[in-house]
Amino acid sequence: MNFFERLGERIERADSVLCVGLDPDPGRIPDHLTGHDLPRWAFNRRIIDATHEHAAAYKPNAAFYEDPDGWRALTETIAYAHGKDVPVILDAKRADIGNTARRYATLLEGRGDGHARGSSHARGSGHARGGNHAADAITVNPYMGRDSLEPFLSRAEKGVFVLCRTSNPGGADLQDLELASGEAVYERVAALCELWNANGNVGLVVGATAPEELESLRDQVPDLPFLVPGIGAQGGDAEAAVEFGLSHGTGLVNSSRGIIYAGEGDRFDRAAGEAAKRLKKRLNRYR
Amino acid sequence: MNFFERLGERIERADSVLCVGLDPDPGRIPDHLTGHDLPRWAFNRRIIDATHEHAAAYKPNAAFYEDPDGWRALTETIAYAHGKDVPVILDAKRADIGNTARRYATLLEGRGDGHARGSSHARGSGHARGGNHAADAITVNPYMGRDSLEPFLSRAEKGVFVLCRTSNPGGADLQDLELASGEAVYERVAALCELWNANGNVGLVVGATAPEELESLRDQVPDLPFLVPGIGAQGGDAEAAVEFGLSHGTGLVNSSRGIIYAGEGDRFDRAAGEAAKRLKKRLNRYR
Repeated sequence: MNFFERLGERIERADSVLCVGLDPDPGRIPDHLTGHDLPRWAFNRRIIDATHEHAAAYKPNAAFYEDPDGWRALTETIAYAHGKDVPVILDAKRADIGNTARRYATLLEGRGDGHARGSSHARGSGHARGGNHAADAITVNPYMGRDSLEPFLSRAEKGVFVLCRTSNPGGADLQDLELASGEAVYERVAALCELWNANGNVGLVVGATAPEELESLRDQVPDLPFLVPGIGAQGGDAEAAVEFGLSHGTGLVNSSRGIIYAGEGDRFDRAAGEAAKRLKKRLNRYR
Repeated sequence: MNFFERLGERIERADSVLCVGLDPDPGRIPDHLTGHDLPRWAFNRRIIDATHEHAAAYKPNAAFYEDPDGWRALTETIAYAHGKDVPVILDAKRADIGNTARRYATLLEGRGDGHARGSSHARGSGHARGGNHAADAITVNPYMGRDSLEPFLSRAEKGVFVLCRTSNPGGADLQDLELASGEAVYERVAALCELWNANGNVGLVVGATAPEELESLRDQVPDLPFLVPGIGAQGGDAEAAVEFGLSHGTGLVNSSRGIIYAGEGDRFDRAAGEAAKRLKKRLNRYR
């Protein structure tokens, strides 16, 4: 079963299209967790315990884990989410030339050094090949073109979300430029992604801060599920995110800071659970 | 002193514009090193010992270090290169939305978790703020626009090489598209980079496999140094790389596999040293 089929089943089961971003800023981890061996993992575990009933997926951003302890925290987090039956998208925004992209693609196979096979966490949970530490999908950057993404695209059972129209203000700098053909750059990226979708494993990242682009892209590529960030701290349009983000019912609307930092102190996780439940319900109104 | 001033001094001192890519593929590390605690670090140390006289800079690609042991190998490698007085460019190709990009920018401050300050390697060698583990420059991806790069651009003493026209075949997919204005996308990226260069710390990545683009870009942005990959295994044009890659004498031509895998077995490092020396001389013919 490929990623989007698995995701579709999870969306049904959880009755949710909410993706929870796991971006644990060391400066915002509650004091009572900072003495933990791996504070980010301690934080994520509590967030997952509190939110998993409402989450269609988790999305850890690799930037928050790029140090020795961080990679341990990340792999524990992925395995734990899988234990709750929730797929994980690694928000890595990667791309590189062939031999290097192949190395990055190992991020989809658990630890990049191949340790995952012998790990105590590799419990064979049924989550796609590569062990329980392995992310189920990844975000990638299209600027370097097809061959830079091939090692991701070729893993048919893994999802590949290509940055198309991003939610940040600078998203317009390149993505909105008009091509000689009359299309915008991001529209050409969407068209290329359809060509690159031979394995049915490609989705797009389209920010909720650009609701008109969301709508026109949904028309352009009706079969590509979107991962839609930007509805929380970035102030995007939740209704448009759901209405145009889903393809045949499958797609994800992400919130990171709005959920994981909903509360502070000892009961931060409870506040996160409530925020996730509230947002799930709000998004479900538009499904 | 900013990165390009430091790099210019290093180029003078080493009489070289050669950048050596440190991309240690676990499958290609000689047998006698695989029992080492950190085989990639053991490999890199020997490569640095053998090549540093000929290297204007080292460029580890982050993809080869993205696991717990990998980050240790990377930080040891950076500190060791600094001990030989050679600046280090982290080839990370990063970009993300503001709060996340700020996390990535900590890659320029040693370990992402802030451990660098207390490290035994923080010897204060005079290499830019951030300790001896900290890379001196980074490569970034422009697709998400200016704000996604701001945390890198704002570190005035660090170098920022923006992907412009990459050396891989898929580089043309997006980068060569013609805009309504008549420019190619990569030309617009170069123009944006001039705007983003308020701190004098921006360079471009332009592949040697695209010599015509190299030449026209040099005309377009005479003051931006280029980092030129693609002359070795990828078959690019070494003469064009030097002729058009340098700006006022400063710029880098990279070779990774052609140097670090020049030989095999016990004397691999000696072969690497000879390959580096040969390539330095060859490049110097065109300076």
